[in-house]
Amino acid sequence: MRVGIVGSGSWGTALAIVLADNAHQVEIWARRSEQADEINRNHTNEEYLPGIQLPDTIKASSKLEQVVEGKEMILFVVPSHSIRQVARQVSGYIPQEALIIHAIKGLELETHKRISEILLEELPVPLHERIAVLSGPSHAEEVSKRSPTTVVVASNSIKTAEEAQDALINQHFRVYTNPDVVGLEIGGALKNIIALGAGISDGLQFGDNAKAALMTRGLAEISRLGVYMGANPLTFSGLAGVGDLIVTCTSKHSRNWRAGNMLGQGHSLQEVLSVMGMVVEGVKTTKASYELSFQCGIEMPITQQLYQVLFENKEPRKAVEDLMGRLKTHEMEEVAHN
Amino acid sequence: MRVGIVGSGSWGTALAIVLADNAHQVEIWARRSEQADEINRNHTNEEYLPGIQLPDTIKASSKLEQVVEGKEMILFVVPSHSIRQVARQVSGYIPQEALIIHAIKGLELETHKRISEILLEELPVPLHERIAVLSGPSHAEEVSKRSPTTVVVASNSIKTAEEAQDALINQHFRVYTNPDVVGLEIGGALKNIIALGAGISDGLQFGDNAKAALMTRGLAEISRLGVYMGANPLTFSGLAGVGDLIVTCTSKHSRNWRAGNMLGQGHSLQEVLSVMGMVVEGVKTTKASYELSFQCGIEMPITQQLYQVLFENKEPRKAVEDLMGRLKTHEMEEVAHN
Repeated sequence: MRVGIVGSGSWGTALAIVLADNAHQVEIWARRSEQADEINRNHTNEEYLPGIQLPDTIKASSKLEQVVEGKEMILFVVPSHSIRQVARQVSGYIPQEALIIHAIKGLELETHKRISEILLEELPVPLHERIAVLSGPSHAEEVSKRSPTTVVVASNSIKTAEEAQDALINQHFRVYTNPDVVGLEIGGALKNIIALGAGISDGLQFGDNAKAALMTRGLAEISRLGVYMGANPLTFSGLAGVGDLIVTCTSKHSRNWRAGNMLGQGHSLQEVLSVMGMVVEGVKTTKASYELSFQCGIEMPITQQLYQVLFENKEPRKAVEDLMGRLKTHEMEEVAHN
Repeated sequence: MRVGIVGSGSWGTALAIVLADNAHQVEIWARRSEQADEINRNHTNEEYLPGIQLPDTIKASSKLEQVVEGKEMILFVVPSHSIRQVARQVSGYIPQEALIIHAIKGLELETHKRISEILLEELPVPLHERIAVLSGPSHAEEVSKRSPTTVVVASNSIKTAEEAQDALINQHFRVYTNPDVVGLEIGGALKNIIALGAGISDGLQFGDNAKAALMTRGLAEISRLGVYMGANPLTFSGLAGVGDLIVTCTSKHSRNWRAGNMLGQGHSLQEVLSVMGMVVEGVKTTKASYELSFQCGIEMPITQQLYQVLFENKEPRKAVEDLMGRLKTHEMEEVAHN
């Protein structure tokens, strides 16, 4: 298949490797022409995947429309805050039969919309049943090294999900299907909030017991909001729920965990964001989810504490202590899906 | 309360610290008199909790019957293979009104029975409604340092669970109740199997994506067996399910993970067990669960692969590859609770 990948960060580039390994013709869009030149000339993307040699067949271009024109499959892998504008810009250039996959884990800040909702608004109607979402526990660095990885693809159309599965699956990169688009998008976006919290807890050296408690409670509150929005509760027990949560909260590769870790060590949000360089999706997702939780009347104590740390200068130590101390005597455990 | 703790390993000693902090009178049973002497004289238990100073009020004795006699609360914290014999030995010495808590994570090898089932068989009838189980993400080392920790207590009697909660809860050690005894016991025992598998995957350097996939699938198969045995599926989404699984598979404190890690690096089971010194509950639990899975007709692919590695000399790398490669094209994700 001829594939256009819109986005040349670490995840877009890692997915380019998977697709090139599967003998597809891959063209990546890079916003900066120097980055496109680096991919074409040196077959590397040192800023985002240092030390990784890309297959020679991967081409790059800084011309957005050209990357989608004539393609049978388009992958959107840009930061959540730019997907609407990018989708709008390419909307008229995507072939009518193309398969559309997004692998973006976030919510739109102003509207709280999921990425597939934005795509439905920005892409022409014939493409609507061709939209799929890719999620799961998949650090780009490991995928680019062909480490064993499992992911999930969801679509409202089974045919679309299965086509995406066929295009992406190989020996190292195992792709499952799931009909639950809402569950995949909520799980993928909101686990970044919990990863920030887990990083803060680790930065404060609260230990592995505290972190496991935070992650368990985090899964419960993600699940509560997701189910309210129409997700299948079982999705949160699967790879795109607890699987992605685990990898994001416990792996050294996770930028959201690293950002939280710096916050826990006493750095300001300003400092953290300038040091990280890359987008920290969890920060914006915390704001969107905080607003959503009030709008929907869903209790999300971790999201609420995180919001206060990020945007209201609450002491991280006080926030984690408040979370751990919420329990009253004789309170039963509130488990997920309640 | 006057408390007798039957077992002086790291977890029994850490729970002694919690109870002493709560101003209970604690006496620990140590099998070896030198260990009892060390606790009484030096207020340390260097073999199991190196570097930790115990509260002076904690007493120890090597006389088993004496440790339970006249006590209002008894905690059983011995390895699963010795609980039946120990319970039988003290059965006639426990006061009729005493609260009984066990914090043992395993199954009886020959019978596949849960620990509370063994206690029901070995303790007199008036004590049956006084039995509770304690579980959750709680490495002993961190509890002994007063790091924030959450646990769950379950009993068929709400009154018993609440009494146990009242006795144990404090600022650092947060105790929830849950009526699901079966779920707590199955979750606590079987996560050690998955921790061995996670350790093997890490020992083979398969990466964080692979480990997260293994843990997610592991949670699903634990949940399948537990639900078959009468557990509430939601328990596996809580602290004693996914919470305990996370801490056991990702923390450097976990001896089951460490054992798996050595297996993944090429050591034999014999070598691992002799180096570890401490009991590795996951090894026996793998055998018991493997047999149970056939008996109950429940698919448990990770347990089955682990069994082959531990007892049939299967190559660890082949086992993990077989697990990752199970997927056929167009297979939907099998999530927990199915």
